[in-house]
Amino acid sequence: MTSDSVISSADAKLYAEVNDFYARQMHAIDSGQAETWAATFAEDGVFAANAYPRPTVGRAAIEEAVRTTAADLAAAGVVHRHWFGMLAVDDERDGVIRARYYALVIRTPKGGDPVIHRCTSAEDELVRRDGRLLVRRRLVTRDDL
Amino acid sequence: MTSDSVISSADAKLYAEVNDFYARQMHAIDSGQAETWAATFAEDGVFAANAYPRPTVGRAAIEEAVRTTAADLAAAGVVHRHWFGMLAVDDERDGVIRARYYALVIRTPKGGDPVIHRCTSAEDELVRRDGRLLVRRRLVTRDDL
Amino acid sequence: MTSDSVISSADAKLYAEVNDFYARQMHAIDSGQAETWAATFAEDGVFAANAYPRPTVGRAAIEEAVRTTAADLAAAGVVHRHWFGMLAVDDERDGVIRARYYALVIRTPKGGDPVIHRCTSAEDELVRRDGRLLVRRRLVTRDDL
Repeated sequence: MTSDSVISSADAKLYAEVNDFYARQMHAIDSGQAETWAATFAEDGVFAANAYPRPTVGRAAIEEAVRTTAADLAAAGVVHRHWFGMLAVDDERDGVIRARYYALVIRTPKGGDPVIHRCTSAEDELVRRDGRLLVRRRLVTRDDL
Repeated sequence: MTSDSVISSADAKLYAEVNDFYARQMHAIDSGQAETWAATFAEDGVFAANAYPRPTVGRAAIEEAVRTTAADLAAAGVVHRHWFGMLAVDDERDGVIRARYYALVIRTPKGGDPVIHRCTSAEDELVRRDGRLLVRRRLVTRDDL
Repeated sequence: MTSDSVISSADAKLYAEVNDFYARQMHAIDSGQAETWAATFAEDGVFAANAYPRPTVGRAAIEEAVRTTAADLAAAGVVHRHWFGMLAVDDERDGVIRARYYALVIRTPKGGDPVIHRCTSAEDELVRRDGRLLVRRRLVTRDDL
């Protein structure tokens, strides 16, 4: 533990903001709103994962990936819900806010039981553009790989 | 994403307040405190769900429903834990605070393994009475239905 | 529900601080950083659980317990992730902050599917030393026992 664990007043505001930002971002991806989802990334945003051979780069590619996945899930009659938890947010430094958290994917088939599909940890670099938070870089690491 | 994703200072306070309110509300329902649970709804509060043919309306009916469920769970030797996550809280408008979130029910039988019993998304209309938050209307949508 | 459910401005700051503290504490335990984990407890901190015949007392014992568990998990090729949720934080009283929450352990074997290993509720007494939060006493109650 470092003094990072003591949050100043400004940080409490940031902490709520990041939580709310992630909630809206996950509502977008889980409801298949690919364009809204992509708009939460910087124009040249990067989505990297240990499950992928290479990162997805830029809004267009990030949007397309989710559009494909959403169509596949709908065709299969399956709902995915992304849950973030255990969020630690560092102070902004050089214009970048670093956040680390855990993320689950809960998978529910129509007529079936929910299961934990994925358990991961993740790390984001967040930036501000016109006052809004955007993801500049996300790295997601699946626990099973 | 709209400018909704940028939270003002006042909203950070509201965000913590809603989180804490939900925690206490779920501690009440999961420990079978039906009266305490019902008191977190407005007198004419509505609990609606896609699992039910019609909404439960008013504190007395909301209390009775939980009292029955709590007795059934206790008789079966099962513990339910309600988890909320990915909470997005909108600014108060016309006296109503709108919150959207995911909710799980984790089910653990005595001597057995926990499972995700339900995976849902939900939407609340919250109001203030004498400074306290109350649920005026809740709509819970199960992912499996 | 009592007036506890209404959070003052100071409490919103505390609420974020406790959430962030718990996130960093769980990142430490789940990555096997036993010393960092132990440093989040008071020198004479107590970790009690209904799963244990007696509490673990003091940083050295708390550190040793996690070091052993982390080695066992690594040898078994299993990742544990501790998730806290439904956190209610009471105002500081007589120098002690009382927090109640739910906690899950998500278990993922390499090459396998994640499952909920434990579902618990917990209660902490937190104190401040040199401005930092520390756990003075934690009681964890497994739902299956």
